Amino acid sequence: MKEKFFEKLHQHYDEMVEIRRYLHQHPELSFQEQKTAAYIATYYANLGITDIRTDVGGNGIVVKIQGERPGKTIALRADFDALPIQEETGLPFQSTTTGVMHACGHDGHTATLLVLAKVLFQMKDELAGEYVLIHQHAEEVSPGGAKPMIDDGCLSGVDAIFGTHLWATLPYGTVAYRKGPIMAAADRFEININGYGGHGAQPHKTKDSITIASQLVVNLQQIVSRRVNPIESAVVSVGYFRAENSFNVIADQVTLGGTVRTFKPEVQESIERELERIVKGTCLAADCNYEFHYYKGYPAVVNHDEETDLLVQCAGKIQEIDFVEESVPEMAGEDFAYYLKNVPGTFFFTGAKPENVSAPFPHHHPKFDINEKAMLTAAKTLGLVALRAAEL
Amino acid sequence: MKEKFFEKLHQHYDEMVEIRRYLHQHPELSFQEQKTAAYIATYYANLGITDIRTDVGGNGIVVKIQGERPGKTIALRADFDALPIQEETGLPFQSTTTGVMHACGHDGHTATLLVLAKVLFQMKDELAGEYVLIHQHAEEVSPGGAKPMIDDGCLSGVDAIFGTHLWATLPYGTVAYRKGPIMAAADRFEININGYGGHGAQPHKTKDSITIASQLVVNLQQIVSRRVNPIESAVVSVGYFRAENSFNVIADQVTLGGTVRTFKPEVQESIERELERIVKGTCLAADCNYEFHYYKGYPAVVNHDEETDLLVQCAGKIQEIDFVEESVPEMAGEDFAYYLKNVPGTFFFTGAKPENVSAPFPHHHPKFDINEKAMLTAAKTLGLVALRAAEL
Amino acid sequence: MKEKFFEKLHQHYDEMVEIRRYLHQHPELSFQEQKTAAYIATYYANLGITDIRTDVGGNGIVVKIQGERPGKTIALRADFDALPIQEETGLPFQSTTTGVMHACGHDGHTATLLVLAKVLFQMKDELAGEYVLIHQHAEEVSPGGAKPMIDDGCLSGVDAIFGTHLWATLPYGTVAYRKGPIMAAADRFEININGYGGHGAQPHKTKDSITIASQLVVNLQQIVSRRVNPIESAVVSVGYFRAENSFNVIADQVTLGGTVRTFKPEVQESIERELERIVKGTCLAADCNYEFHYYKGYPAVVNHDEETDLLVQCAGKIQEIDFVEESVPEMAGEDFAYYLKNVPGTFFFTGAKPENVSAPFPHHHPKFDINEKAMLTAAKTLGLVALRAAEL
Amino acid sequence: MKEKFFEKLHQHYDEMVEIRRYLHQHPELSFQEQKTAAYIATYYANLGITDIRTDVGGNGIVVKIQGERPGKTIALRADFDALPIQEETGLPFQSTTTGVMHACGHDGHTATLLVLAKVLFQMKDELAGEYVLIHQHAEEVSPGGAKPMIDDGCLSGVDAIFGTHLWATLPYGTVAYRKGPIMAAADRFEININGYGGHGAQPHKTKDSITIASQLVVNLQQIVSRRVNPIESAVVSVGYFRAENSFNVIADQVTLGGTVRTFKPEVQESIERELERIVKGTCLAADCNYEFHYYKGYPAVVNHDEETDLLVQCAGKIQEIDFVEESVPEMAGEDFAYYLKNVPGTFFFTGAKPENVSAPFPHHHPKFDINEKAMLTAAKTLGLVALRAAEL
Repeated sequence: MKEKFFEKLHQHYDEMVEIRRYLHQHPELSFQEQKTAAYIATYYANLGITDIRTDVGGNGIVVKIQGERPGKTIALRADFDALPIQEETGLPFQSTTTGVMHACGHDGHTATLLVLAKVLFQMKDELAGEYVLIHQHAEEVSPGGAKPMIDDGCLSGVDAIFGTHLWATLPYGTVAYRKGPIMAAADRFEININGYGGHGAQPHKTKDSITIASQLVVNLQQIVSRRVNPIESAVVSVGYFRAENSFNVIADQVTLGGTVRTFKPEVQESIERELERIVKGTCLAADCNYEFHYYKGYPAVVNHDEETDLLVQCAGKIQEIDFVEESVPEMAGEDFAYYLKNVPGTFFFTGAKPENVSAPFPHHHPKFDINEKAMLTAAKTLGLVALRAAEL
Repeated sequence: MKEKFFEKLHQHYDEMVEIRRYLHQHPELSFQEQKTAAYIATYYANLGITDIRTDVGGNGIVVKIQGERPGKTIALRADFDALPIQEETGLPFQSTTTGVMHACGHDGHTATLLVLAKVLFQMKDELAGEYVLIHQHAEEVSPGGAKPMIDDGCLSGVDAIFGTHLWATLPYGTVAYRKGPIMAAADRFEININGYGGHGAQPHKTKDSITIASQLVVNLQQIVSRRVNPIESAVVSVGYFRAENSFNVIADQVTLGGTVRTFKPEVQESIERELERIVKGTCLAADCNYEFHYYKGYPAVVNHDEETDLLVQCAGKIQEIDFVEESVPEMAGEDFAYYLKNVPGTFFFTGAKPENVSAPFPHHHPKFDINEKAMLTAAKTLGLVALRAAEL
Repeated sequence: MKEKFFEKLHQHYDEMVEIRRYLHQHPELSFQEQKTAAYIATYYANLGITDIRTDVGGNGIVVKIQGERPGKTIALRADFDALPIQEETGLPFQSTTTGVMHACGHDGHTATLLVLAKVLFQMKDELAGEYVLIHQHAEEVSPGGAKPMIDDGCLSGVDAIFGTHLWATLPYGTVAYRKGPIMAAADRFEININGYGGHGAQPHKTKDSITIASQLVVNLQQIVSRRVNPIESAVVSVGYFRAENSFNVIADQVTLGGTVRTFKPEVQESIERELERIVKGTCLAADCNYEFHYYKGYPAVVNHDEETDLLVQCAGKIQEIDFVEESVPEMAGEDFAYYLKNVPGTFFFTGAKPENVSAPFPHHHPKFDINEKAMLTAAKTLGLVALRAAEL
Repeated sequence: MKEKFFEKLHQHYDEMVEIRRYLHQHPELSFQEQKTAAYIATYYANLGITDIRTDVGGNGIVVKIQGERPGKTIALRADFDALPIQEETGLPFQSTTTGVMHACGHDGHTATLLVLAKVLFQMKDELAGEYVLIHQHAEEVSPGGAKPMIDDGCLSGVDAIFGTHLWATLPYGTVAYRKGPIMAAADRFEININGYGGHGAQPHKTKDSITIASQLVVNLQQIVSRRVNPIESAVVSVGYFRAENSFNVIADQVTLGGTVRTFKPEVQESIERELERIVKGTCLAADCNYEFHYYKGYPAVVNHDEETDLLVQCAGKIQEIDFVEESVPEMAGEDFAYYLKNVPGTFFFTGAKPENVSAPFPHHHPKFDINEKAMLTAAKTLGLVALRAAEL
């Protein structure tokens, strides 16, 4: 059955490319993906599938395909939103919407899942279990689409979930897996240092917010260097520092902000706590006030062992896959994290480095591109894992 | 003669007020003071004075009045530019030009000097020496009008120079003098920290310019705390720190800048040297590049002893002056400094705090105002000093 | 054969305890372990073993036992030096040497290996391969005994090596393994900041070495927070900071030093480089001189995959072992690292927490103790792994 | 009378030298000056003076000489303690007491005042007023002898006081005066940072007191750079930083301390307040405890205007004095400060640079020496000022 399944996927590869290129030409920003959602729903309707829920937790779509034999209920997820980037690839199927681009491969994810679903539907009489296809909107912003879709029941009855990201910096033919944390929790913070401005020649009449905020940035380095267990990973980065003034005026206020990346909730919480403590102490030392805001973003994507083992097994049986390797944890974030907090599953990277390119453009770059053949690899891997998981 | 001179000034006090209010209604920005210059030149022409040079080093005007008897050549200076500030005083003679205001008292300086000159001209047959009236444009910006006026010969033949600033935070009836430095050298610096940007989650692939620049601001504190002789005055203030970015991006570059205030050239030079040394070392430690720019502004206003002694003597003989006191050095700047580098003289503050006001609005404030009676005090003081200095 | 082997170890458990207690009473410091070495050599000689090399790379001893059947050559290592600590356990077999104590369990390591070797020798006619018993002196200091023993040929002909540490903070019945790095590289650095001293009231005539060195310590935090990949582990700690002076004198010189811990050579090297760069930049900023010394200590203990897999298998077959678990990497160091740079093998922790103790005293503590039964567990594990490895 | 007075002093110059050299050979430490005190009392007794109080506030001596005519009561003060320094001058009259040396010129002060008193006594029939000769013990330590002598009544009835310091770095022939603050208030502080120690490889289990204390030293720089009015003088110097540990242990505690120098009480108080604030905030940021101790030392020596004017007048009339110049304020301390808080007066420096020396050894140096001729200058200046002040 596996061979038949793979063959059918091969036969529909051209359709996959076609869909991906159509979507690439018509990108929509997070939470504004109505046309893409309609496109997806219509695709399924045209196949004759009837179990289609639209507007799930927003623009999300959930489709179910019932196998003939009893088995587990397995979910597969693909995201479909695009980014506020002006495309510069020069591809013939370049974005037709100014300032919006599929610069992260979600067009490929959607094409992969649509065609994979089509094949599953074609073969449903031979299959065990049930297949839940989750087309998720709004992955690029926090809070994204995963949480409201879950709240709206998309995981109801699901026994396990799988998802992948086409990864342009990973060679084609690679599947990169990882047990436990594979992508980081990504939080945001913003701090206002409320000093007291004045003439640059009279510092003693002021509370010099630039000096205080600079002191703070220096002090923050100790969170990672001294207060986090060295065998845990953590990042605290300040991304902006706003203090606009005349050269001879001492600034009244500075606003600065940044990101915190962690893999474990206890590390995440201790960093939030230490951040505020350092802000508080630094401002006490300078006799000034502050506002401290900490926004929790996506949690870490933490893969489950059993499902990851299954992935590794399945990936080893796919001809196109030359390398099944353990991934380093990525400090970037993904809201697939929420699914894995509710049901077991695993999230992995499918190598999608464009051909004949040594240094591929990174995700979110105006010249970002993928190797479309990776969609077929992804469809085979996700599909085989789903079939096997359903049998369990 | 002194009494007659004072009496004449008294008689013309109303005219002083009238002129000041007219100028107050018609302020012009630095280097754009054509109408004010024409007004001044016309005033002198109407008096019958013929030795009027216009366009001296820009919009400057230099007028000479010859006394009957031999004596020294004494210069008196008043500046006449206004500021880019929207007036909010609500005075009946408020500025008629949107966004431009005489918020530093230069209108009063000009009125004082015009009327003083009128009286000197009236009494010229009784006077010794020669009087050079320097009406200077563009004091508020650096480089200002003093230097080009000097280059254009305004001090030619001058033996000594005197000038005053109506000072709204000093009580009416006060003359504040100081031997040596009375106003600071005001320099400007700008530094670019050229790090290497990247993803907020990957600090090791970047050179984090915000952290480097923050470190720099902290390090700069040691200039004043450790490297300047504690009995000397010095200020190093950072006024702006520009690092605009997304919260999850590490900034490629930071631009920061500020001001340095000193009274002595050797302190000024050592600070410039230490500033660059600290920038260089901080960037070496962080393995990044920088650009360092240091712009020397006005030098310190350094009064001469003999002329200051003369001022103190003269001020003590004016009825309206209750307090002749030593001034603390002001960390603010003035381009009167340039005159004093060329000829002996002194610069002093004339108390001009408005009546019935406990906390006067500071100079450069939209509600700034002066006590107009201080113009008469200033005219008497400047005039008497000039008469005496000419006799010497 | 495994059962017979285990039974024999059981039968000799009392001897193991006896040896350990004798050694515990007679501890010797690193590089001064002549009596312990003689004790070990005599033990083997008394068994009738003839292939005994003494004075290997110092006080080391290497013994070989030849199995009957062909097979691999497998080394087992135990260290035997003690620490400069005054024992406070109050045990009946407490150290009889003032100020010296087996406070790290090396007495137990030696007893384990001696009895294990005795049993291997007894069963040699049933065994495949050859067994090389490495009794290593001087593990507690850097550079220690492993390197000179290797230089003196102790690994000659060896196919694989195994070692364990009795670990008092790990519950009895646990074997903790790890593929790849299990113990850190432990380096040392020392920095002299050569400022220029003077009167506390005259900082401008000095180069204030305390302020400079403090600035340096703050700057060093950026190594771990900004320059090391967050998914790698690294520690930079300053352990001492010497600046003794009168309160009103600015210090001429500061000496500070500390430790660097890493698992990967490229991280280790980048930290050494960054350390010196930061010292250099900080001193350039302060216009002072420095001396920078970096002493590489033991490299990281990096276990090999195949031998670790074998260990996990074997440990799973020992009745007393309830938990075979993956260890977190320990930031502490071990010179077993050198053996693993020469031949494949693995180093693991054997749970030796004393009974009825919730918070055991840590290694190197005056009240440190072990659960002696862990010696039997260790002997079984090391022995079974050796037998199996020899068969391969 | 002035000429006669000066002539008499000249005549006794040899005695001055003799006394000074005798005292130089027999130095005594602060509060242990019994023999010196006895020497002084005997000297006066031998002159036939009867109004001698000994043991004033400790080892202090107060002698009164009554003039014939009515007039003011004028005090003159000289200190007589030595320092714990091993002399290395090689002078023929070098200290005979190991480890104790007159390395600050107090031997000269005493010789000056004794001989000056002798002459005043000789001329008492011609003098107006009364002369109070204060020989003060213990000037070199804080709290010193001035305060207890005042508490014991040494200023009772005194109208004005004068004192001088022979100043080895000021050319012979110079009198350096200053109105207002001439010597600084000298305070001391000590701070314990109570972190939490641990293994150098496990910073997250510690509160790293070296990093915290280093951060503190860096933060303290902002007191002078940002919080003190730039036209005021202030110094905050850390003199010691004690953190002794093994290189691989994180320090539990750091003790650091230093000095604060100021001229004005309000600056002094604001610095004490800011110091504690910064310690508190830095420790809050690091979640650790601290102890903060601030010890006020001598206040600033603040000269009175009228007495300083008188000094300037008198100094100008002394032949040997070529330069009467305004002194810069010295950041060093003096307990003459206490006298000036009780009665008007002035303290000045008498140039005492040894002949033929370009770079004289500084005060408190083992090779310190003075030009003995400066004693005569000092005696003339102090004497003439006293005579004139008594007449007022």
